[in-house]
Amino acid sequence: MMNETIETILNHRSIRKFKQEPISDEVLLKLVECAQAASTSSYQQVCTIIGVDDLEKKVRLAELAGNQSYVAENGYFFVFCMDYHRHSIAAKMMDANIDETIQSTEAFIVGTVDASLAAQNVAIAAESLGLGIVYIGGIRNHLKEVSDLLDCPEHVLPLFGMAVGYPDAEPVKKPRLPLPAVFHRNGYQKKEETEKLLKQYEKETSDYYTKRTGGKRTEGWVTQITSSMTVPKRTYMKDFVHGKGLNKT
Amino acid sequence: MMNETIETILNHRSIRKFKQEPISDEVLLKLVECAQAASTSSYQQVCTIIGVDDLEKKVRLAELAGNQSYVAENGYFFVFCMDYHRHSIAAKMMDANIDETIQSTEAFIVGTVDASLAAQNVAIAAESLGLGIVYIGGIRNHLKEVSDLLDCPEHVLPLFGMAVGYPDAEPVKKPRLPLPAVFHRNGYQKKEETEKLLKQYEKETSDYYTKRTGGKRTEGWVTQITSSMTVPKRTYMKDFVHGKGLNKT
Repeated sequence: MMNETIETILNHRSIRKFKQEPISDEVLLKLVECAQAASTSSYQQVCTIIGVDDLEKKVRLAELAGNQSYVAENGYFFVFCMDYHRHSIAAKMMDANIDETIQSTEAFIVGTVDASLAAQNVAIAAESLGLGIVYIGGIRNHLKEVSDLLDCPEHVLPLFGMAVGYPDAEPVKKPRLPLPAVFHRNGYQKKEETEKLLKQYEKETSDYYTKRTGGKRTEGWVTQITSSMTVPKRTYMKDFVHGKGLNKT
Repeated sequence: MMNETIETILNHRSIRKFKQEPISDEVLLKLVECAQAASTSSYQQVCTIIGVDDLEKKVRLAELAGNQSYVAENGYFFVFCMDYHRHSIAAKMMDANIDETIQSTEAFIVGTVDASLAAQNVAIAAESLGLGIVYIGGIRNHLKEVSDLLDCPEHVLPLFGMAVGYPDAEPVKKPRLPLPAVFHRNGYQKKEETEKLLKQYEKETSDYYTKRTGGKRTEGWVTQITSSMTVPKRTYMKDFVHGKGLNKT
């Protein structure tokens, strides 16, 4: 039940320190080819990837993403976008208007899924080549600025970035939720079961942090996640996304 | 620039006919383990997978997904859900309320991305084992019924299904958009460039369909996508999602 691919997948950890070694164009194009090979809803292909190697732009993106140095210092930086601009142009070529479809919640789901499947292909392909990656949700801290910096027109929404490069760190993996908490059979599990598993996980993650920090940090996942989710983040998102002509109806 | 993993990724095609051979529990759990190994935004782990092997439920899901027989006839069926129910329970254990965060557009993006990254890990892991897969967006035809069938509580949104099994067909790959159309460098490409590439792609896909159907079907991607997107689909989605306490603010 093990092979190279599954080993690659299970060995994933986010890399936040890269060697100063750029990715060759050959590798780059292979990664994009992998992105394109992912499934796409109804052949719509709603993902566009903007590759960034312009250093000034990378530095600016790093600032916008909350001063994460590895957004600038890596082998290459990808921005994955939901993209219905292409479909809008296609429709105009046919004298049609499909804005009502594009602005729907359904299309917003499709676009986010399409871009994510493509991105995960890139992640795994990169890791299979000995590269490391980290997803950068931080570009959503300031999406207007990111969108302007990358000239994204209406109907194009940068969703997340991905830094890729040769790893210069070997981070450990944090314990994931117990498998029975995320895999339910034939129906969603009962609340009592979830509570039981969360208590078990709180203990497990608390022990993990206590050990790793020599007791400086003792909160487990339940405590941590509650505290990080108490204040809503990126509350401008709804208006911004609407302004892009997306997720409105 | 080629290895087993990249070969698996590039060789992907959706399988819609499976042998009558169930997936062993060992394989199943390995696939879920792979799902859990994917990146997750801020350690939130917003994905729950509901595995369905109850035949009655599978038959019902097949009906709901638009009478797609392979939703019932396969080795196993997964439903990937965005899941903030867990976080809501975690917060209650801490006497906190995080509903404002959960209902945000930002959280809706995070949840859709998290579930999709996990799903694509399952897809690639399955294919690396010689299994075939097909994503089933069709479960979004009737999400209320799907959600009820699987007992999904508030804050749990089934996003898509995935049928997995031993392939009993060898479908061909449809040509994807030209790579320069989906991979832009340092900024979104100019409209004229997109138009040029779309015209080229229209010709390429038209030739492809003409050849494959012996001239019965001649429309390329531009024609096809415009026609399929002229009438909005699943227009109940916004209200349904709001009813789940998601994507509201």
